[in-house]
Amino acid sequence: MATSWAQLAERGRGPQAVDTWLRGAGQVMFQNNPLTGLLFLAGIYWGASLWVAVAATAGLVVATATARQLVRVDTVSLRSGLYGFNGLLVGAGVATFVHGEGFLAAAYVTLGAVVSVYAMSALSAVLAAWRTPALTSPFVLVCCWMLLAAYGLSRLSISGLGPAVLPHVAAPGTSAALLAPLFLLEAWLKGVGQVFLIGNAVTGVIFVVALAVSSWRAALFALLGSAVGMGTALAFGANRAAVGEGLYGFSAVLTAIAVGATFYPSSVRTTGVALVAAVFTAIVQAGLDVALQPLGIPTLTSPFVFVTWLFLLPHLQLAPVPHAPLTPVPHAPLAGPTVKGGT
Amino acid sequence: MATSWAQLAERGRGPQAVDTWLRGAGQVMFQNNPLTGLLFLAGIYWGASLWVAVAATAGLVVATATARQLVRVDTVSLRSGLYGFNGLLVGAGVATFVHGEGFLAAAYVTLGAVVSVYAMSALSAVLAAWRTPALTSPFVLVCCWMLLAAYGLSRLSISGLGPAVLPHVAAPGTSAALLAPLFLLEAWLKGVGQVFLIGNAVTGVIFVVALAVSSWRAALFALLGSAVGMGTALAFGANRAAVGEGLYGFSAVLTAIAVGATFYPSSVRTTGVALVAAVFTAIVQAGLDVALQPLGIPTLTSPFVFVTWLFLLPHLQLAPVPHAPLTPVPHAPLAGPTVKGGT
Amino acid sequence: MATSWAQLAERGRGPQAVDTWLRGAGQVMFQNNPLTGLLFLAGIYWGASLWVAVAATAGLVVATATARQLVRVDTVSLRSGLYGFNGLLVGAGVATFVHGEGFLAAAYVTLGAVVSVYAMSALSAVLAAWRTPALTSPFVLVCCWMLLAAYGLSRLSISGLGPAVLPHVAAPGTSAALLAPLFLLEAWLKGVGQVFLIGNAVTGVIFVVALAVSSWRAALFALLGSAVGMGTALAFGANRAAVGEGLYGFSAVLTAIAVGATFYPSSVRTTGVALVAAVFTAIVQAGLDVALQPLGIPTLTSPFVFVTWLFLLPHLQLAPVPHAPLTPVPHAPLAGPTVKGGT
Repeated sequence: MATSWAQLAERGRGPQAVDTWLRGAGQVMFQNNPLTGLLFLAGIYWGASLWVAVAATAGLVVATATARQLVRVDTVSLRSGLYGFNGLLVGAGVATFVHGEGFLAAAYVTLGAVVSVYAMSALSAVLAAWRTPALTSPFVLVCCWMLLAAYGLSRLSISGLGPAVLPHVAAPGTSAALLAPLFLLEAWLKGVGQVFLIGNAVTGVIFVVALAVSSWRAALFALLGSAVGMGTALAFGANRAAVGEGLYGFSAVLTAIAVGATFYPSSVRTTGVALVAAVFTAIVQAGLDVALQPLGIPTLTSPFVFVTWLFLLPHLQLAPVPHAPLTPVPHAPLAGPTVKGGT
Repeated sequence: MATSWAQLAERGRGPQAVDTWLRGAGQVMFQNNPLTGLLFLAGIYWGASLWVAVAATAGLVVATATARQLVRVDTVSLRSGLYGFNGLLVGAGVATFVHGEGFLAAAYVTLGAVVSVYAMSALSAVLAAWRTPALTSPFVLVCCWMLLAAYGLSRLSISGLGPAVLPHVAAPGTSAALLAPLFLLEAWLKGVGQVFLIGNAVTGVIFVVALAVSSWRAALFALLGSAVGMGTALAFGANRAAVGEGLYGFSAVLTAIAVGATFYPSSVRTTGVALVAAVFTAIVQAGLDVALQPLGIPTLTSPFVFVTWLFLLPHLQLAPVPHAPLTPVPHAPLAGPTVKGGT
Repeated sequence: MATSWAQLAERGRGPQAVDTWLRGAGQVMFQNNPLTGLLFLAGIYWGASLWVAVAATAGLVVATATARQLVRVDTVSLRSGLYGFNGLLVGAGVATFVHGEGFLAAAYVTLGAVVSVYAMSALSAVLAAWRTPALTSPFVLVCCWMLLAAYGLSRLSISGLGPAVLPHVAAPGTSAALLAPLFLLEAWLKGVGQVFLIGNAVTGVIFVVALAVSSWRAALFALLGSAVGMGTALAFGANRAAVGEGLYGFSAVLTAIAVGATFYPSSVRTTGVALVAAVFTAIVQAGLDVALQPLGIPTLTSPFVFVTWLFLLPHLQLAPVPHAPLTPVPHAPLAGPTVKGGT
């Protein structure tokens, strides 16, 4: 069936457009796979409100159209869905927190999806100097600005944001209670669902299945990332309610898939580095949660973006060392690979 | 007359220095034109207090001298005024909010103007990797630090800053009242004046005339940008007093001139992209206004800088498509032009 | 003796490891010298609590081991201690403010030291595009995140941080009192000690001696930087208690050594530029102190990092001008040297 769909998508304009949209949905977790994207959308429609699900879909479609018609990006990236996934996330992110007088909120989501494409082009151009992907940084940037702006725009309504408060030291002992297995299971699955801002365990299961359709390794690292994020948060005494909603899982999920199952070759070293990165993502999640309290906005996927950049920018050599005489490591002192390649 | 001044400026050291200063003033809105700069200064002296006008002039002169004597920048950029405009803005920006015991405030402005040149050199060197201009980012960076510092330095007085507050949701309905045409006209023109932090409609008119002397297109996009910024803010219910002072206009003015009339060729596509950029600038203005409330400092021109970078970094292909057989778009997948050019 | 230690460090694995650690300690103030590093550690153990001193040492050792075993950095940088100094600072910085249930706080420090190496690799790769060093930015980034996170993690205790407050205008007159010479002397020396977060005058003296062992010029610029930072702060009326603790000195110390005695050739122009940079570092220190009040965390060495980048990125031509016919300055308009070199 996959083959016949691929043939159909090559020939017809309509199927090709649908195929591009679905791949865009799949790219939220790095999968260039239309079936994964379809299942992601199914998980969104299952777990999110209709307004959020429609806004996510509209963001995906608008961003893809903007990339094709207005920005004229290269065809390969476009067809892989690389200009759609930030639009989908902007749609979901803005709609989760912003409502308004009919047309205005829809215009707001549309504007965000359009700008996400320019942001993706700009950030990709910058990061191309180090052959490093923009990840979901366009979504984080555009959505942060739009959520902040919504505080000051009286014709848009906000729900689920803030109130803005100054950070204070967490009360000790709140995490001392015994943790029920069901609590842990739910938090674990919701952690995967929260990648699309959805705190729903069933949606989390659908997302894992969607990943497995494309890559068993990605599905495993998603589950591993959510568990590591949750475990790190509990070990250091993070807010239990936040852990229970999967809010310490989603960024670690993305970090684990990116570092462990996407941008480095499979190896024991890669798995080890991905685990360190996932643990630190949970710490950065806790830190940015505190840092954004005075602004009353969520971190979105920024902990994933920052930590994954730290682990991708050095272009680590994580392939297994072959059983052969060792050669000197071809690093120049403190110089990145790009600079060497450029001269 | 323009010709004879140009001849004079080539021969004499004094006229050449004056010419460099005036071009520096003109570069605040991207015009390498001494008459435009002269009219900008006239608008400043008309609309601002004497302390602010003198500080702006001193910032311009000090920064230009620093670039010539201390930093030894290239002569072409220096003569075009590219090392003066951030000094002028630092002078105006610091003096608008900071006062003090005679000598100290003057020393503070001077220090800011000197450092603006190093900041311009540093940020230009960084952004040269993507052939993208630093815009007013040196001003924003230096002035933000100096305004924040003024809170903690008891021998400098602050006025018009803060108080720092936590963001709260804007009260609905404040913008429901009918908008008088005179209110709109004043806000429209003040939006142009606020590029130099001056909420004065006459100054706004002088600035538009100053632009028209150098470029009709720049003048038109300035008016267009102010209107779009104001209109977007009103449509989404931004604070009416802020709109009336032109505070949603000035960044959109700069974005519109930069994207629509400076860094891309004239075309219908360019105009369309400039409009989208100006609309989004107003949203980012609202967002950064909220984000800086807990710090008690203004955004300065940062919304312009961030949004314009988003639209310049991709090096969009906005020239009209010739009526000839289409050739493939020469973009490499997700790679910026600079990187391609470098290899 | 130095020669025999160098010979010993070349041959034995144990002495070589110790030599690498000591050079790592020395690199906090840019000295690739094991004796300087040994004296730095002596100053830390003299002035800091045992928990902080041990954490700093552990951070140094863990980071160096991570660089060697996990990240596989180039040998020259590793042996120079360039992958150790951020780990030492992360250890000192986290331990100064975070305590906890035995094992947990130790694990927290260890995690920070490990991640500091990935951060150093990432930021060095980015900045290599402009042949500019990462300085202590990996420490600032990792330590900021970990201090912020500690607010939200109830099984870690915080002391000496916060409370988070909104900025308010400094009361005038607090700095009007006559300044006793002893106050100034102590503040001057503590300013050097605070480079390692230690407000102790004897430690400051030890650090100056440690620098002099490696470079008289570096020792002089450290003392000069502390004096300039303190003097600037007092001139503009900064909080006297903060000045007395050396908190306006340490970033200016680092800026002065970096700009005046490390990255530019010795010359009168270099000294002048280093003084301007040190003065501005004190202003940025005041500004970032205010900016971080709502988050309840200290600036760490970020004022040094930001200002020094501004003065290093332009690759200023500060060598004395030879007494020979002048040639045109070989700058391209607004382009950094790297870009010219890359084409």
